[in-house]
Amino acid sequence: MRKEKLQTIPLTQIRIDDSFWNRYTSLVTKKIIPYQWSVLNDEAEGAEASSCMKNFRVAAGLEKGTFHGYVFQDTDLAKWLEAAAYSLSYEKDKELEKLADAAIDLIERAQEENGYLDTYFTISEPGKQFKNLKEGHELYTAGHFIEAAVAYYKVTGKDRFLKIMRRTADLICEVFHTPRYENAVPGHEEIELALMKLYEVTGEESYRQMAYDFVNRRGTEPNYLYHESEREDFVDVWHDSNPYLNAYGQNHLPVREQKTAEGHAVRAVYLYCAMADLAYACQDEALFEACSYLYRNIIEKRMYITGGIGSSGTLERFTTDYDLPNDTGYCESCASIGLALFCRRMAQITGDSSYADTMELALINTVTAGIAMDGRSFFYVNPLEVWPDSCIPSTDKNHVKAVRQKWFGCACCPPNIARTLASLGEYACFTGKTSVWLNLLTGGKIETELGGTGLTLTIDSRLPYEGRALVKLESEGARGELRLRIPAYAENPVFLLDGEKITPTVEKGYAVLSGVWKKQTVELSFSMEAHFVYANPKVRADAGKAAVMKGPLVYCLEEADNGENLSALYVDVNAPLGEEYREDLLGGTVVIHARGKRISEEGWENLLYGTRKPKLEETELIFVPYHSWGNRKQGEMSTWVKIF
Amino acid sequence: MRKEKLQTIPLTQIRIDDSFWNRYTSLVTKKIIPYQWSVLNDEAEGAEASSCMKNFRVAAGLEKGTFHGYVFQDTDLAKWLEAAAYSLSYEKDKELEKLADAAIDLIERAQEENGYLDTYFTISEPGKQFKNLKEGHELYTAGHFIEAAVAYYKVTGKDRFLKIMRRTADLICEVFHTPRYENAVPGHEEIELALMKLYEVTGEESYRQMAYDFVNRRGTEPNYLYHESEREDFVDVWHDSNPYLNAYGQNHLPVREQKTAEGHAVRAVYLYCAMADLAYACQDEALFEACSYLYRNIIEKRMYITGGIGSSGTLERFTTDYDLPNDTGYCESCASIGLALFCRRMAQITGDSSYADTMELALINTVTAGIAMDGRSFFYVNPLEVWPDSCIPSTDKNHVKAVRQKWFGCACCPPNIARTLASLGEYACFTGKTSVWLNLLTGGKIETELGGTGLTLTIDSRLPYEGRALVKLESEGARGELRLRIPAYAENPVFLLDGEKITPTVEKGYAVLSGVWKKQTVELSFSMEAHFVYANPKVRADAGKAAVMKGPLVYCLEEADNGENLSALYVDVNAPLGEEYREDLLGGTVVIHARGKRISEEGWENLLYGTRKPKLEETELIFVPYHSWGNRKQGEMSTWVKIF
Repeated sequence: MRKEKLQTIPLTQIRIDDSFWNRYTSLVTKKIIPYQWSVLNDEAEGAEASSCMKNFRVAAGLEKGTFHGYVFQDTDLAKWLEAAAYSLSYEKDKELEKLADAAIDLIERAQEENGYLDTYFTISEPGKQFKNLKEGHELYTAGHFIEAAVAYYKVTGKDRFLKIMRRTADLICEVFHTPRYENAVPGHEEIELALMKLYEVTGEESYRQMAYDFVNRRGTEPNYLYHESEREDFVDVWHDSNPYLNAYGQNHLPVREQKTAEGHAVRAVYLYCAMADLAYACQDEALFEACSYLYRNIIEKRMYITGGIGSSGTLERFTTDYDLPNDTGYCESCASIGLALFCRRMAQITGDSSYADTMELALINTVTAGIAMDGRSFFYVNPLEVWPDSCIPSTDKNHVKAVRQKWFGCACCPPNIARTLASLGEYACFTGKTSVWLNLLTGGKIETELGGTGLTLTIDSRLPYEGRALVKLESEGARGELRLRIPAYAENPVFLLDGEKITPTVEKGYAVLSGVWKKQTVELSFSMEAHFVYANPKVRADAGKAAVMKGPLVYCLEEADNGENLSALYVDVNAPLGEEYREDLLGGTVVIHARGKRISEEGWENLLYGTRKPKLEETELIFVPYHSWGNRKQGEMSTWVKIF
Repeated sequence: MRKEKLQTIPLTQIRIDDSFWNRYTSLVTKKIIPYQWSVLNDEAEGAEASSCMKNFRVAAGLEKGTFHGYVFQDTDLAKWLEAAAYSLSYEKDKELEKLADAAIDLIERAQEENGYLDTYFTISEPGKQFKNLKEGHELYTAGHFIEAAVAYYKVTGKDRFLKIMRRTADLICEVFHTPRYENAVPGHEEIELALMKLYEVTGEESYRQMAYDFVNRRGTEPNYLYHESEREDFVDVWHDSNPYLNAYGQNHLPVREQKTAEGHAVRAVYLYCAMADLAYACQDEALFEACSYLYRNIIEKRMYITGGIGSSGTLERFTTDYDLPNDTGYCESCASIGLALFCRRMAQITGDSSYADTMELALINTVTAGIAMDGRSFFYVNPLEVWPDSCIPSTDKNHVKAVRQKWFGCACCPPNIARTLASLGEYACFTGKTSVWLNLLTGGKIETELGGTGLTLTIDSRLPYEGRALVKLESEGARGELRLRIPAYAENPVFLLDGEKITPTVEKGYAVLSGVWKKQTVELSFSMEAHFVYANPKVRADAGKAAVMKGPLVYCLEEADNGENLSALYVDVNAPLGEEYREDLLGGTVVIHARGKRISEEGWENLLYGTRKPKLEETELIFVPYHSWGNRKQGEMSTWVKIF
């Protein structure tokens, strides 16, 4: 760990303006936030009824009715508010702020007298608070509202929402230190990282302590969650007859003894986020070590090349080392968001660019794949290979969808993607006491300071299609370091300071440029050609196959470009790859051409097995970026291709 | 359809004595039947408690207690009795017959006054008969008892059990022709084929009519099963909150309009059995056409090379054409048994050897794989590729087991395998009015007649390791045809009659030898070298791969012979395959040697993805028969191998 934790820059001081990212971030304000608002209010056509706002009105006593939706339905509003807050940071919008304020007003009305906030229990199980931690999601829901409140406070300066959520947080700190809840932990982690955000913005030690206690209790005896349903006052929510699986909730071992990423992937990475926060806040080296172990287990053995995690659709979970099936894996959008959140925290406390490499991978491939280019449909599950005909409900591929869905009954991903894209600035750069760190090399403008003197950075970036970023600095003499991440995929990086070649020192993957800044330009360029990537041969699903990457972008084959049956294709890894910018395609993108072969289907009509040796025909393969797949007509997609 | 349906030969007139099959059939009498009896009586160590006999004692009022086990637990006893009956046909065993008679006595005591027989409903839901056809399994259970009763009657000549089950059958014929049950069908097919067996042995038309009605009602409106749970008197059994899926129970279309094999694989093939029986019995050409279509859909598009069916673990069902995943498929042992039963019936009414080819494939590869060589453990699921580390409970591979299990709570497969092996003679040969048909070319002795004159056939077979079968005929001048199946895999078949080469005519894959038989020998020999087989390139899972077959045997790689990580192996399909009989291995078997390559794991430690091109090392591959896999220590197995 560094002595000094790197800080995110307030989103009000950052404006992302980037030829790649604009297509996604612009969707948030223009499309997703208004669309999701209509969904929350049951006004969106073609989407499942959310009932989210209605639940709040019922809980507030403004309307008669029963609760509808999942037990964690409230979080749709929380994530929407968080996204709205971020959106307001770079686009003032009185109307949106008014909607948000009205929603906050409603939240306050729905809050119970003791600070409790959860419309499911208020409506359906009044008085039975915190009686089902493994399924009830009350702490998870509180966590998302706390995150939203912190975001709203930071952006607007208004503290009403923050105060509401402090009441909830105070209640939690009180209840979960009573004897009944001595060793209690939430079933779905989230409150821990949220309490750390609240601690950071309020300085209130009890929030940090509660987060620390939750993390330290997990996986220890007596195992609260495992035995919870034996309690007399247990409130059954899901009527799940399966026994509680400790590893599903990272509840199988004390966290410092966990060496492998286990269980539900989203829960896991949300826990790891809090562990990283607490490792620094409590200067707990053992906790940091655990984070490092878990991170390495993920990226060395349990992560898809796209930054996706969670190999099993059943329980949306991690399985075992090297088990990364391409057509049945889960790779939930939310899990990659959580991975990016975890990486960001690890980067903040280590200053190590390798975390930013993984963060970028997850964000630019999987989180973006989660959303259609029109911003109106979403993937929960992000498989690396899809054969639409076989993605049949009520089969093993029940969870795999060949086309993005309008809105799910369980709507965690869409608003989570929205809040992530809207807060991209928090991933893009950090500041230290006397340093500015550019992680993503994303285009845009940053207004910050170094040692008390203002500093404006304007970044013009050609990523991810070309390895070039130009940083213009303007200041009245700010003194300190500009740290530029050199991505792992950058080859032969060259630095120019005001046009002159320089050779900066490199620390943990960041080039360090020290100086007194007035009006200078720094240019980083590197080569970043499309190339083949292979998986560790222990990855059974990818043995004998290659993927194509260019910079951080993972590519894939789509039926639209390559015809039916992508499994019949081979790529020639000894032939050069061709790159072509296609203005007309998928909003403008670089496609990759490769030489390949196709197994002929000639003579196989009505024959399932035979002795005829496969006949191979020459063909050209066209790869497109994975993040943009599924934006044309429904068809097959494949990331890993057989090689010859 | 043929004008004349070919008949199975009574098992009392057949003795299988075959160097390959003896290892399995001998298990039935010596191991499986006694072991399963101990399981039924809750006396087997290490097996889940069955409670089967206890349920009968409770239902009979001989013991106090509640029902335990699955709703169809009774069928364990039914299948055991059927297997015991077959076993008695070739091995007289007073003790076994006594046990069986006592069990039949108990069944009679458990039978209700009106003929109803099902201990679950008698004990747990008295008076609520036939109030949940989709899950209740009462008709399925009755069907298995009818099959057992017919078998017991045929072998022992005792008709007590048959009379008991006629009372049940009569009740069914009555109830299911009342207005309430006007369009009712069973959720799990089985009663239809059982009623046809009962019809054949009793000549009672009402049984045939009931079977025909059940088949004709399926998939027609008003859809009884789909709307069943809306009935006021519906008895919930499984508390399944999922909506009823018509296709799951082949209830989506009238049977004559069904062109693809859909839904639960066992249910499907049990239905098709009855359809084939009825097509002949009612001379219903449209029904026969439907059978042909469904059969072709299976073997041309939806069957594993091992004769396994059912591509999805979820709902144990068919999915879509060419969707045959090797590591997650279901391939239930019972489904392959059902496929063999269907093929046998199609062969009986067509005289076409291609049905026997499929029947043999399913029996010799998957049904046998379902049982360990010690007869004490069983596979439900028969995957074509297993990586034990990834077969984790509560994941997508929950259903895949890397080692055979002692006995399951849901124990359909073990007793089903037992009754199938014990009745192998019914698959091995048929008779026509003036013909004897040898389908499997299995070694053994058959005592039958042709045109009223006795004929004894003694077969000495070298299959499946060598293409040679010697048939000795003895008769006082029986006149008629000997029909020998020429398997699809037989190359250059040569026939010798008393040592002289002959060239018989061939009809639908059977060589036809006509004559007046006294003391002659007929020898069929053919070459049957191990060779590579490929799948239709549309089978995504097998594209770019080959399997090895020799005759009807499918081979596979096991970790025991080829080391860890079978996915890293390639086989050279241009190099010759070597065959070696290994006396010491797996009870004596032919192994296949092949030239191959292995992707080196060197340099990949702690690296998940990288740009290093795969380095291939020369290696030798050893294939063993699929049916014998998993009989050494736990390890990986793979049927399809990458090719170069």
